[in-house]
Amino acid sequence: MDHVARIGTLRRRITKAGLSGLLVTHLPDLRYLSGFTGSSAALAVTRRTARLFTDGRYKTQADTEVQGAQVHIVGSSPAIAAVEWLAAQPSAQSAGFDAAWTTVAELARFKAALPSHLRRSFLSPLAAPLVEPMRQLKDAEELALMSRAALVGCKLFDHILTVIRPGLPEIEIAAELEYKARLFGAEGMSFDTIVASGLRSALPHGRATSTPLPRRGFLTLDFGIILGGYCSDMTRTVHLGSARVRERETYQAVLESQQAGVQAVQPGALCSEVDAAARGVLRRAGLADAFSHSTGHGVGLEIHENPRVGAGQKTRLAPGMIVTVEPGVYFEGEFGIRIEDMVAVTESGGQILTPSPKALIEL
Amino acid sequence: MDHVARIGTLRRRITKAGLSGLLVTHLPDLRYLSGFTGSSAALAVTRRTARLFTDGRYKTQADTEVQGAQVHIVGSSPAIAAVEWLAAQPSAQSAGFDAAWTTVAELARFKAALPSHLRRSFLSPLAAPLVEPMRQLKDAEELALMSRAALVGCKLFDHILTVIRPGLPEIEIAAELEYKARLFGAEGMSFDTIVASGLRSALPHGRATSTPLPRRGFLTLDFGIILGGYCSDMTRTVHLGSARVRERETYQAVLESQQAGVQAVQPGALCSEVDAAARGVLRRAGLADAFSHSTGHGVGLEIHENPRVGAGQKTRLAPGMIVTVEPGVYFEGEFGIRIEDMVAVTESGGQILTPSPKALIEL
Repeated sequence: MDHVARIGTLRRRITKAGLSGLLVTHLPDLRYLSGFTGSSAALAVTRRTARLFTDGRYKTQADTEVQGAQVHIVGSSPAIAAVEWLAAQPSAQSAGFDAAWTTVAELARFKAALPSHLRRSFLSPLAAPLVEPMRQLKDAEELALMSRAALVGCKLFDHILTVIRPGLPEIEIAAELEYKARLFGAEGMSFDTIVASGLRSALPHGRATSTPLPRRGFLTLDFGIILGGYCSDMTRTVHLGSARVRERETYQAVLESQQAGVQAVQPGALCSEVDAAARGVLRRAGLADAFSHSTGHGVGLEIHENPRVGAGQKTRLAPGMIVTVEPGVYFEGEFGIRIEDMVAVTESGGQILTPSPKALIEL
Repeated sequence: MDHVARIGTLRRRITKAGLSGLLVTHLPDLRYLSGFTGSSAALAVTRRTARLFTDGRYKTQADTEVQGAQVHIVGSSPAIAAVEWLAAQPSAQSAGFDAAWTTVAELARFKAALPSHLRRSFLSPLAAPLVEPMRQLKDAEELALMSRAALVGCKLFDHILTVIRPGLPEIEIAAELEYKARLFGAEGMSFDTIVASGLRSALPHGRATSTPLPRRGFLTLDFGIILGGYCSDMTRTVHLGSARVRERETYQAVLESQQAGVQAVQPGALCSEVDAAARGVLRRAGLADAFSHSTGHGVGLEIHENPRVGAGQKTRLAPGMIVTVEPGVYFEGEFGIRIEDMVAVTESGGQILTPSPKALIEL
């Protein structure tokens, strides 16, 4: 990843925002900008230079990983060291911070660390985030990595189809998925694996339990892996045994809704239009009330990123964005169905990164 | 878990703090108080009652899980709904919030949702946290669960000793640990599994990579599982092949440091005293500089909780607390060693929850 270029872009954004510096404490932002993958650090960026503060545990790792910023090892809080350094720069007037990733308690500590004449006005919440818009637009290297991560997900789905059988506890499906994910090179899973079978498929977030898979009924698998720090995310719902007419028809409606959502992923389209496309199909099928969540979300270094794909979301899709499209319907005490792809926005439309089959599979 | 009693205790603490209500948004606090395990919710507690707000995805789950609070499903932000509800209570004057778990951006949104006459003074940051001190003291049910989780960790360590061999990639050790963890009933791992071999053992946080295990050298395994929401945490360092004299002596020093730390875990002792006990042994062995982190941390619903066990930490240990004791030494370009137990504070001293062998194992 070209971290030097990213920090260069950010420096220009800092200048344009009229700030003398920026404090970055959100770890995914920090990783995106500098390459550092540790769990304790802060990055201070000025119009001219950048410095990463971390503690002694991460010395070797920071020296190896960090590009585009000088590394300083500190004995106490990296964030406070970063604030103090920003304030000590020649002609330092104002440093921005991201109010969405700074707690009220942290801000009070940062202010207490400043010299008294800077305490009131030096730190200012960003009017709009500076790093997040950069992270939304994936470059070619990120797209290649996320595409690989998504394809590992598809391989895992292929594999798990050979494992599924009535009586097997959901948790063993999760165990097998996660074990194979590691062998396929994953650093970990991008969220708690969802394995929701039978009545539990009506839970949109049914993490795997010891419940045995039923002889007959839906099974929703929603999982993702992490590769080079980037997350994948996909959902497929399969049926154990033969599906009844209503189950089959409902599945078909969700599939058409999902396909309509994917079709709506176009450069220039509003996120709300993608949501409306998916939701419209379910509404016309009389299933609007059963679709109890939004249609999707951006994905990248974090499993849930901007843009959000839901009603009222006015972000315009642009080439480089990667979003999920995942409508679902849920009937308490009966069953649930969700189908999800990762879709990359390209110049010519949406490109599915998770090409596993979506026609109803009966096992 | 007796959630009704916990919310009762909290209500009395709210009264004692002179507040009319409390907003709880930190999910582990919320789970501790109400039993809810979903990923989006807020809990509003007054002197008299409690209400949990969540969204449509979690209706069924909240109805099943939540005790001690009425569940309300909302279409937008659960936290804002909770703030609005607190402000609408008869004789509502002031609601506390935890500044360590509220971002600057959230607080601005909460204030904007209040009627104008309440905007300035209704929400007040807690002078001291109200829920965290409750969570620090584990009850008998929590202790039993965490003890089980810790013993699963020990079983995993026993198992992995039969798997370790030169040439095996670190990531396959992690895969095997995590697979078996699932089969032993774990809901997941409590943090990214650390498998750091050979030169990489000098990284205090060396997550598993594709590096093959060496013929000769240390291998640090630091891992934990989640059971019923509660985390375990343990570290053992073993040696592949025969250890050299300096490696053996250094291992012995870390072991004695760790044992001294465990010995110092006594009701009434300061956390800083536990740190000093472990650190003193390494200092006397001339290894002070190589011990680059603090001695331990509380553990529970979160992998890192209060109390912190480090220099200057003035919390007094009390029966019911569970802390880790995990000194380590790291020599860049050479090797590293860390040994960690979970230790429960009892009336009569510290009780090790992770009784896996600690004498040097050469494989």
